[in-house]
Amino acid sequence: MPAYKAPVKETLFLLNDVFNIEQYRSLRGFEDLSPDLLSAIFEEAGKLAGEVLQPINLSGDQQGCKRLPDGSITTPDGFIAAYNTLKDGGWVGLSADEAHGGQGLPATLTILINEYFASANLAFGMYAGLSQGAYAALNVHASDDVKSKFMEKLASGEWTGTMNLTEPHCGTDLGLLRTKAVRADDGSYNISGTKIFISAGDHDLAENIVHLVLARIEGAPEGTKGVSLFVVPKRKVDADGNAAETNGVTCGSLEEKMGIHGNATCVMNFDDANGWLIGEENRGLKAMFVMMNEARMGVAVQGLSVSEAAYQNAVTYARDRLQGRSLTGPKFPDKIADPIIVHPDIRRTLMSIRSFNEAARALIVWTALKSDEAHRTPDSDARQKASDHLSLLTPVLKGVLTDRGFDNTVAAQQVYGGHGYISEWGMEQFVRDARIPMIYEGANGIQALDLVGRKLPADGGRALQAFLGEIGMFIQAHATDEDMQPFVLPLKTAAEDLQAATMWFMQNALGNPDHAGAGSTDYMHMFGLVSLGYMWARMAHVCLQQKSEGKGDVAFHDDKLLLGTFFAERHLPETAFRRVRVENGSESMMKMAADRF
Amino acid sequence: MPAYKAPVKETLFLLNDVFNIEQYRSLRGFEDLSPDLLSAIFEEAGKLAGEVLQPINLSGDQQGCKRLPDGSITTPDGFIAAYNTLKDGGWVGLSADEAHGGQGLPATLTILINEYFASANLAFGMYAGLSQGAYAALNVHASDDVKSKFMEKLASGEWTGTMNLTEPHCGTDLGLLRTKAVRADDGSYNISGTKIFISAGDHDLAENIVHLVLARIEGAPEGTKGVSLFVVPKRKVDADGNAAETNGVTCGSLEEKMGIHGNATCVMNFDDANGWLIGEENRGLKAMFVMMNEARMGVAVQGLSVSEAAYQNAVTYARDRLQGRSLTGPKFPDKIADPIIVHPDIRRTLMSIRSFNEAARALIVWTALKSDEAHRTPDSDARQKASDHLSLLTPVLKGVLTDRGFDNTVAAQQVYGGHGYISEWGMEQFVRDARIPMIYEGANGIQALDLVGRKLPADGGRALQAFLGEIGMFIQAHATDEDMQPFVLPLKTAAEDLQAATMWFMQNALGNPDHAGAGSTDYMHMFGLVSLGYMWARMAHVCLQQKSEGKGDVAFHDDKLLLGTFFAERHLPETAFRRVRVENGSESMMKMAADRF
Repeated sequence: MPAYKAPVKETLFLLNDVFNIEQYRSLRGFEDLSPDLLSAIFEEAGKLAGEVLQPINLSGDQQGCKRLPDGSITTPDGFIAAYNTLKDGGWVGLSADEAHGGQGLPATLTILINEYFASANLAFGMYAGLSQGAYAALNVHASDDVKSKFMEKLASGEWTGTMNLTEPHCGTDLGLLRTKAVRADDGSYNISGTKIFISAGDHDLAENIVHLVLARIEGAPEGTKGVSLFVVPKRKVDADGNAAETNGVTCGSLEEKMGIHGNATCVMNFDDANGWLIGEENRGLKAMFVMMNEARMGVAVQGLSVSEAAYQNAVTYARDRLQGRSLTGPKFPDKIADPIIVHPDIRRTLMSIRSFNEAARALIVWTALKSDEAHRTPDSDARQKASDHLSLLTPVLKGVLTDRGFDNTVAAQQVYGGHGYISEWGMEQFVRDARIPMIYEGANGIQALDLVGRKLPADGGRALQAFLGEIGMFIQAHATDEDMQPFVLPLKTAAEDLQAATMWFMQNALGNPDHAGAGSTDYMHMFGLVSLGYMWARMAHVCLQQKSEGKGDVAFHDDKLLLGTFFAERHLPETAFRRVRVENGSESMMKMAADRF
Repeated sequence: MPAYKAPVKETLFLLNDVFNIEQYRSLRGFEDLSPDLLSAIFEEAGKLAGEVLQPINLSGDQQGCKRLPDGSITTPDGFIAAYNTLKDGGWVGLSADEAHGGQGLPATLTILINEYFASANLAFGMYAGLSQGAYAALNVHASDDVKSKFMEKLASGEWTGTMNLTEPHCGTDLGLLRTKAVRADDGSYNISGTKIFISAGDHDLAENIVHLVLARIEGAPEGTKGVSLFVVPKRKVDADGNAAETNGVTCGSLEEKMGIHGNATCVMNFDDANGWLIGEENRGLKAMFVMMNEARMGVAVQGLSVSEAAYQNAVTYARDRLQGRSLTGPKFPDKIADPIIVHPDIRRTLMSIRSFNEAARALIVWTALKSDEAHRTPDSDARQKASDHLSLLTPVLKGVLTDRGFDNTVAAQQVYGGHGYISEWGMEQFVRDARIPMIYEGANGIQALDLVGRKLPADGGRALQAFLGEIGMFIQAHATDEDMQPFVLPLKTAAEDLQAATMWFMQNALGNPDHAGAGSTDYMHMFGLVSLGYMWARMAHVCLQQKSEGKGDVAFHDDKLLLGTFFAERHLPETAFRRVRVENGSESMMKMAADRF
């Protein structure tokens, strides 16, 4: 049976020591966040993850969700009780506005706590995660009247949320969607159509479900310019704000899928279902993007989550499994064999995963804090910079953390040998679960295109310049610090590769956009490597500083310095290879006729 | 529903044009293999794969094998009928000796046909594949008496075979095994113990199952030096050679696993089961290695198989799925959107897979022919060279083709977006099925160690020198051929990287074997890249030659030249990155204490 222990110490090190959350204490929601309070919150969240959510992860996968003959959906055993614990603890609305009954804490906290929840139970964590996304979209775009109907219930977790975008013939290209909306006399709309792949689309955890639905108002223009966003509850809301009669929203079937079996992935049928417009008519994609960007960050975190859970279990197995002897002679001659953790190839695997995980978590903290800053600082210059960072890094986080996170679960599974393929050990579930974050909320190829085609050129490349500028300044600031050279020298080379690839795009892809498409995925991964390498340099700097001051936990610092060295030696050099690929352009792949594939 | 069409033209191009199978016509079994006969055999095998095995692949996965209350095991619907077709067509014993009722054809043919069968239905193909492995092991090591009991039945497919190695506490380290053998008065042995992960361990396809079992004879030395190999049938064999009463061999349970659900993976209980020694006492591992090497080659092929099936389906989807527009403007303005095959990132994915598949198939053909040569040529010098090649390349094929094959199924699944995660499309099955070849028959980390620790240094590095020598000569021979430069120049660089990494091991790993362990996986992949790059250079040469002679199919040649260029541009440069990793050694990963992971 797999296990999970939330890495609270890691989280606190990042918040307090590396990114100095203290500096934000003047911002709304940060005021009371002393180190002690932070510690208490994350300890409690970690406990919930390890003791409540993790024990129903494997059983939830094996049991799955069920659609009963009456069309209702049940979640696996234990999900209702666990959800009630989550809800009663106020975890769903931790970052929701106090006006809506939330706790008003920074989004950063919710993002980092969701890491724990998804590590413990990805399928379960999605229910609350989607509510938070729906809350965010409504909070920005909904009318006060609509807000009054839904915000408190979403914040409390009494009701849950969903995103209804995909239809059988359209996923990425939402301009093709056909679900229609007809205006009613009272200003509301009646929605009809079929949506597929709807996570948490129906279930027994909450008495009502708040669907955000993209649809086309009768007579609207074709394409993306005719798409509007609606909120459509599963059950109508009565005058007292309570869930009342059904509303023409049904789950037609559950999708049979590779993993996340504990989450109900539904085909949703809307049959003259009553709903309200969110934001302006025909501007639905813009409104939906608030939710999608939120969701992309959440999905990025899932990549780390499963990677972390897989790592922890692989370490336990590698310490326990006695098989063969160390290449340099028996290390435990009194045992029948050495534990496989003596083998360099096993250590290579484990350190690859961990050196990614720790830097990925740092990248999430850094970006999450920028997200809060973008929403909460009164300083317009800081707001723009934070917003630039968030916008630039979101596709990188989503694409790279989920790609690498999946690879890491596969590598961790490999540590188990044949047992990794057997369900009861739980590793194959991690692989199946970790596969979906690469796909949903925009498949990773789309993230790469978003980065290269939209985020790089935005505002004359301002965001990228700021990003590379900060890294360049850091490298320069530590150019004469000998202990920092193992981190900043490889980072410098990697950043130069990234800069060269960017330059190549500027010189070549403007004339032929296929060159940008051909190199986009490699570029995104270069960007990820440089970002992760920078995180290691920052963490190493803090560790060296604390060591020199005799502060903190020496073993903790030494581990970090070792992991950072490992990452710099073995992962950063990948940028050179990726750069070669980018600079090869698109010729060989565009030349082949479609019917010759 | 996924589909599959066997790449017969590819197979024949490799056999006839690239590797000139004609040159072997003097060897046993090759005499009658005219191009026409080869074409007929592969066409027929392809038909069987596409029309009989493929249609029961998805349903076989969904239904799985079942253990009935009486302990018997059933395979999914359609498996019995398909197996009978396979058996009646003489496919199981295609390469078995004519003395045993086989067709005496080269092993190369069986290996290449098994590619088709495993593409169509990996779980199904394993039943016959294991019989072929058991046949090979018995053919080399069994006494005439034992052979007379089993060989004809295995060759005809009436009975099937298995390998019983793994026990709960030992997989890689077989020296730890506990299954015991007690000598009976008649010279046979009674075997008792439990084996796990036994593919095709029990089923309803054949009236008897021939288990090859590793066990320890009472009083034998500890460790690998006390392990013997036995043949233990499910049912005893009567004087007429027919299956008679049961023999204390039962399937205790079926393993719940990630994939290959159509294959019965059994926990096997041996309870005083009667069997016969194969080969010498306490030399069981040596005898088993015949079967394992055979099996490793077969598993390597499975890596290609699933990659090929995944590729074919991803191409179909990419041509059919209309979504978005080309980056350079609409290509099908009359349709609601362009098919996604217009996108460079999709083409990159597809060409990556295909440029691997075609070179991997070439590598299999090259090595399979060497295997036949090693077994069948009367020329002792040629035999040694062929045997060196086979020995050196087996771990590379197993490790690289299954690692990359799996990655390719994941990439092909990604082309489908959300549909890739849904079972009915079949792509997620390919991923789950393709995961096991990386693990069984020696996890890929073990293959890498076998390559670096055993195969490289064997006979003073003779095999490696011959391998690199051949590639060096090829590069030199084409040094002034301008059309060949896109293939030989990147190959030259890659081969130099491989040579440098080898040199680094020689200079560093003799003193510290951990350096070899730390770099082994990267080295294996470098070796694979150079091997595949060499295959592309050879194929390109044949294509250019045939083009210049006005022979053959121009479009076929042009596709190959494009794919070869793509591989050289985008995959071969990976050796430089892998080399950096090898040369970084083991320090960072060995320094961390086991309890700090």
